[in-house]
Amino acid sequence: MPDPNRQWILAARPHGLITPDVLQLKESPLPAPEDGQALARVKYLSIDPTMRVWMADIPQYMPPVQLGEVMRSFGLAEIVESRHPDFKKGDKIMGLTGFQAFVLIAGKQTHSFQKLPSIAFLSDINFLGTLGVNGLTAYFGLLDVGKPQTGETLVVSAAAGATGSIAGQLGKIHGCRVVGIAGSDEKCKWIKDDLGFDAAINYKHPDWKAQLVAATPSGVDINFENVGGEIMLAVLDRMNLHGRVVLCGLISGYTREDPTPASFGLLLIKRLRVEGFIVLDYATKFMDAGKQLGMWKMTGKLKDKHTVVKGLEKAPDAINMLFRGDNIGKLIVEL
Amino acid sequence: MPDPNRQWILAARPHGLITPDVLQLKESPLPAPEDGQALARVKYLSIDPTMRVWMADIPQYMPPVQLGEVMRSFGLAEIVESRHPDFKKGDKIMGLTGFQAFVLIAGKQTHSFQKLPSIAFLSDINFLGTLGVNGLTAYFGLLDVGKPQTGETLVVSAAAGATGSIAGQLGKIHGCRVVGIAGSDEKCKWIKDDLGFDAAINYKHPDWKAQLVAATPSGVDINFENVGGEIMLAVLDRMNLHGRVVLCGLISGYTREDPTPASFGLLLIKRLRVEGFIVLDYATKFMDAGKQLGMWKMTGKLKDKHTVVKGLEKAPDAINMLFRGDNIGKLIVEL
Repeated sequence: MPDPNRQWILAARPHGLITPDVLQLKESPLPAPEDGQALARVKYLSIDPTMRVWMADIPQYMPPVQLGEVMRSFGLAEIVESRHPDFKKGDKIMGLTGFQAFVLIAGKQTHSFQKLPSIAFLSDINFLGTLGVNGLTAYFGLLDVGKPQTGETLVVSAAAGATGSIAGQLGKIHGCRVVGIAGSDEKCKWIKDDLGFDAAINYKHPDWKAQLVAATPSGVDINFENVGGEIMLAVLDRMNLHGRVVLCGLISGYTREDPTPASFGLLLIKRLRVEGFIVLDYATKFMDAGKQLGMWKMTGKLKDKHTVVKGLEKAPDAINMLFRGDNIGKLIVEL
Repeated sequence: MPDPNRQWILAARPHGLITPDVLQLKESPLPAPEDGQALARVKYLSIDPTMRVWMADIPQYMPPVQLGEVMRSFGLAEIVESRHPDFKKGDKIMGLTGFQAFVLIAGKQTHSFQKLPSIAFLSDINFLGTLGVNGLTAYFGLLDVGKPQTGETLVVSAAAGATGSIAGQLGKIHGCRVVGIAGSDEKCKWIKDDLGFDAAINYKHPDWKAQLVAATPSGVDINFENVGGEIMLAVLDRMNLHGRVVLCGLISGYTREDPTPASFGLLLIKRLRVEGFIVLDYATKFMDAGKQLGMWKMTGKLKDKHTVVKGLEKAPDAINMLFRGDNIGKLIVEL
């Protein structure tokens, strides 16, 4: 008998952080692939703020995870048995694996998986972060929505996160003055000393707003916004006329019932453009963007860091780590 | 002795609507133009929501009117005496005349005035509305910011106002389904029957939100927003993915201390673009846009209506009329 599958099932909608009643670990028989199906062993799970949105029964860009379903997540897996023409045993794939030890690739889900390219100098987990959802999100958000110009000032919130850290480095590549906002001195040191941000501000410091003013002497032209709430409002106050707000995420509101509102009056007076985007809208351009990101990664222009949590049983708390700010760089669960 | 000048002076900052202490009518000697100056008699004042913003000591796109200064406004005037090389007696001009019977055109103010073109079929007051600030605002807001496509649905708030009524008609010219929101059955009848809007919704009707849903069966692609607050939120709820919100004005918030906030979460989920704009940013393109608007006006594709209040002494209350919704179309004071 092979090992059974182990799956985290959404058992209740969360309020605030993920409590023990929200996700339940269940054992189930390992499925045997039928014709046109393949079975893959999950190796890494990508932990992303958007997962908290998927768990809530609110309007969103994909259907929410239903109660009783395996918790949705991106991940990396390796084919262990295949009766599918596109996959053979040993192939590494990435896609919506979910919070489980094995994933059956079948039916409609098949198109959500793709084989990992094998590229020298790049490790597999790069395809979950810098060359995966986070890198692509930073790429299209900053370049397509933000449209940075040389000499402009870019402020990135959650700047030591998987997406923010890439967005800031892309800003440097495009000639911007880049200011990052993060939640610890260690994170600030990393983005400033290792990633080359021009300034880094710890928003837990009492005078962080004064530091933000000092770090943006020419105002702010682009805000790559991952956080929302008080941090976003402080950056909006610094925006220049015709500034752009790239609305990538609003993590400060995901675990609260009252997402922080913002007045549209400021947008009018300053003629700001605020634009929400979802990386999936750019799917047809992923390949080209991935090549470009890979080039920058291989030539050392993009650096990254991973916070690795070991064991499927730790996956639910890993989501909470994001909201507590416990990770630096890309947060992954290694199975 | 000629008549003295009469001027409305900003005496106190308003709270809410304009109360009698806010503006004071003062007589002052008629200035005699020196070399390089001209004197003009004001014939019409343009009454615009933005004037309420100019009266408040808050951050805005022009310096606020200072206490003791003549209240700022657009207007039409006729030169009565000139020692200025560009103007001769009898010339009609438009610009920032202010709330006064005579305006001295001198120094820096000179460049804010321009001579009225004399065009068959167009009356002078058209240059305050359809071919003036309102028409230009609708033109650049809808076409440059909103970018309407044939077959899209456009919702305009304050749709029977000077700007909204033009924005809706421009939407029709560009092949959109156009839905207007206004504050009386009379206004709704005008925009639907005379201006050709596809639907008109009286937001004072108890079931107006259900009417909005029914009138936008394919959702909303463009919101030309003049009002803000509850009306804007109802339209945002109907927006389609990748919809555009042209932030032209937020009149519902101008007389209140608490401008209605809106959650940015919806912008993210729906990938909306919200963009504030100020028509003055397009000054270099006014001439071309004015010609186009004039052509549409002369060929009957743009219709307008004027609400005329007689007498300079009525000017302060005319501002309140805007906020009470007492006007249909362009509100002007005739001196």
